[in-house]
Amino acid sequence: MKKRIERFAKWLEQETIDAAILTSTENVFYFSEFYSDPHERLLAIVLFPHAEPFLVCPQMEEETAKVAGFEQMIIGYKDTDDPWEKVFAEMKKRASGSVAKIAIEKSHMNVERYEILRKAFPSVRFIQAEEKLNELRAVKDPVELEKLRKACELADFAIDVGIHAIKDGASELAIVAEIEYELKKKGVEQMSFATTVLSGPKAASPHGSPDLTKVQKGQLVLFDLGVIYEGYCSDITRTVAFGEIDDEAVRIYETVRKAQEAAVLATKPGKTCANLDLTARKIIQDAGYGEYFTHRLGHGLGISIHEFPSVTETNPLVLAEGMVFTIEPGIYIPNRVGVRIEDSVAVTATGVEVLTKYPKELQFV
Amino acid sequence: MKKRIERFAKWLEQETIDAAILTSTENVFYFSEFYSDPHERLLAIVLFPHAEPFLVCPQMEEETAKVAGFEQMIIGYKDTDDPWEKVFAEMKKRASGSVAKIAIEKSHMNVERYEILRKAFPSVRFIQAEEKLNELRAVKDPVELEKLRKACELADFAIDVGIHAIKDGASELAIVAEIEYELKKKGVEQMSFATTVLSGPKAASPHGSPDLTKVQKGQLVLFDLGVIYEGYCSDITRTVAFGEIDDEAVRIYETVRKAQEAAVLATKPGKTCANLDLTARKIIQDAGYGEYFTHRLGHGLGISIHEFPSVTETNPLVLAEGMVFTIEPGIYIPNRVGVRIEDSVAVTATGVEVLTKYPKELQFV
Repeated sequence: MKKRIERFAKWLEQETIDAAILTSTENVFYFSEFYSDPHERLLAIVLFPHAEPFLVCPQMEEETAKVAGFEQMIIGYKDTDDPWEKVFAEMKKRASGSVAKIAIEKSHMNVERYEILRKAFPSVRFIQAEEKLNELRAVKDPVELEKLRKACELADFAIDVGIHAIKDGASELAIVAEIEYELKKKGVEQMSFATTVLSGPKAASPHGSPDLTKVQKGQLVLFDLGVIYEGYCSDITRTVAFGEIDDEAVRIYETVRKAQEAAVLATKPGKTCANLDLTARKIIQDAGYGEYFTHRLGHGLGISIHEFPSVTETNPLVLAEGMVFTIEPGIYIPNRVGVRIEDSVAVTATGVEVLTKYPKELQFV
Repeated sequence: MKKRIERFAKWLEQETIDAAILTSTENVFYFSEFYSDPHERLLAIVLFPHAEPFLVCPQMEEETAKVAGFEQMIIGYKDTDDPWEKVFAEMKKRASGSVAKIAIEKSHMNVERYEILRKAFPSVRFIQAEEKLNELRAVKDPVELEKLRKACELADFAIDVGIHAIKDGASELAIVAEIEYELKKKGVEQMSFATTVLSGPKAASPHGSPDLTKVQKGQLVLFDLGVIYEGYCSDITRTVAFGEIDDEAVRIYETVRKAQEAAVLATKPGKTCANLDLTARKIIQDAGYGEYFTHRLGHGLGISIHEFPSVTETNPLVLAEGMVFTIEPGIYIPNRVGVRIEDSVAVTATGVEVLTKYPKELQFV
């Protein structure tokens, strides 16, 4: 935690930014270990180049923030207080001299709050903090990696539950229900996104959602899911066959598997995001399915289910140890068949650690 | 839908606002019937005092928006397009003369987008649209009421499932799992908030969350939950006894029930939000538990789980036919016992329709 704050403070210093006011649940958590969705109430961590950060949150959450591990000053406020007044007073104490530049999350902060800030600091330049935050958060430290491993272990378990729930007459939503039921019994409080189970032609839509459609023999069933473990998200996709499937479906499956495994093997420090995407894409193109792989290879994940880096065919970002992202090629023939295979992986010093470990050989259930 | 747009256009005219750019999932849905969470992509409905509105959304969602029922122009865009360019071009065609005032959702729009707007319209005044939107959305039309009834019916069913899942050795999360399992099998895709099951002293924290704590005989078990049905949220709380409970717990339960039922009976056009809150609060105070009723009586609900009106002891808002809100007094003795009873209710022409119908007599399971 201390290291994270130090790295960010260094950036503030380099950019001659006097303070950063970060307001998203995710970035407050990243710097404080305090995870809270305050809805319309103000939650913020305020960081400085040369002074200790402080946290502001509703008074009723002060104790939770301390227990979570935030050791610096916490400013609690009641619903009848104006939290901004307290924030500005404390900022004046800590920012050295006059304030000329303040970093904020421009993609998160709303206009209502921005107007309050602009009124309080009429001549200040407001700087976008996201680029630096994305860069910092993209590289996970050992504590984060351990949480991601646990989150992925639970995702493996969930896939196993889901595959065993496939049977004649079961609807997609009933299978989702089985999965989440077993996870909840293990203490999982939240999924990292809405659990997806899609059968037959529905799996050909990368953004479809499960409904009362019943799984049928002769079809593929696609599972895409993840859990949140101590604030960290996992993400896995597996596609399995319910009964016998036709040769083309098998061919598509094996193409996706080959592409996915090749991209995993290609993952190591020094390679770029584009290298990985193109490794998988070329295999799918060579098999004649290029036009049916309609999305990027993957996305970073951590505190958010989608974060940096974006693993696209044009991203020149060089992989570094500690980066965590998904590798999830797919082939979608509209209204007929869809296959996607996805792992969450971490870049190691010399290669890759595959965090999700559920087998990828085509399973017939 | 047409009426909703007309009412809002009339407000734009009265306030001499040239256009409104609404970007939240909820308000886009309210005016278009198209429910979509576009994440970081732009989704907006643009409305005018004297011209037809148009919708802007990712191209891949255009068809869904049409099917959902939006009959006016839809501007789709690809990830490589600049959607704002298209929006501004279309706005110039529709806004009569020069644009001086634009309404936006200042509590929703982020600074990144606001800067784009300010650059495109350097001399425009940006007006907060929320107050009018809150006022419009607070009064539900018959179509909305019908959806809310269905959502509440499913909430009643969920309470029944939860109460039947109470047994020795069951954890709070296992009971949550049972509830959501049965709902999913009925086709419910989403809860309106995280399903809450709290047992014993945990129920004394109005913001606690379920975990692997096992329900125990002699304790109260509190359920707070709701589902989303065709875009509309329900909300219900029931508290039941697992085995025999002590006299004080019974007295607290009966006090909450009396307060809740009195506030329900007091609900009719002409009364204020404050009247209802104080009706319940007085009963709880008179029983000696005033300091333990630590929150407002209730909140409006509809497309959002929390919307207007806020039913507090100081809100002078006069109730009108079609308003829908919760009535949910509670008594929380820290670390000992917590009871809350909540219904979703609708104001009718002459009184009240209680939308959630699960019985409120103290149940022993």
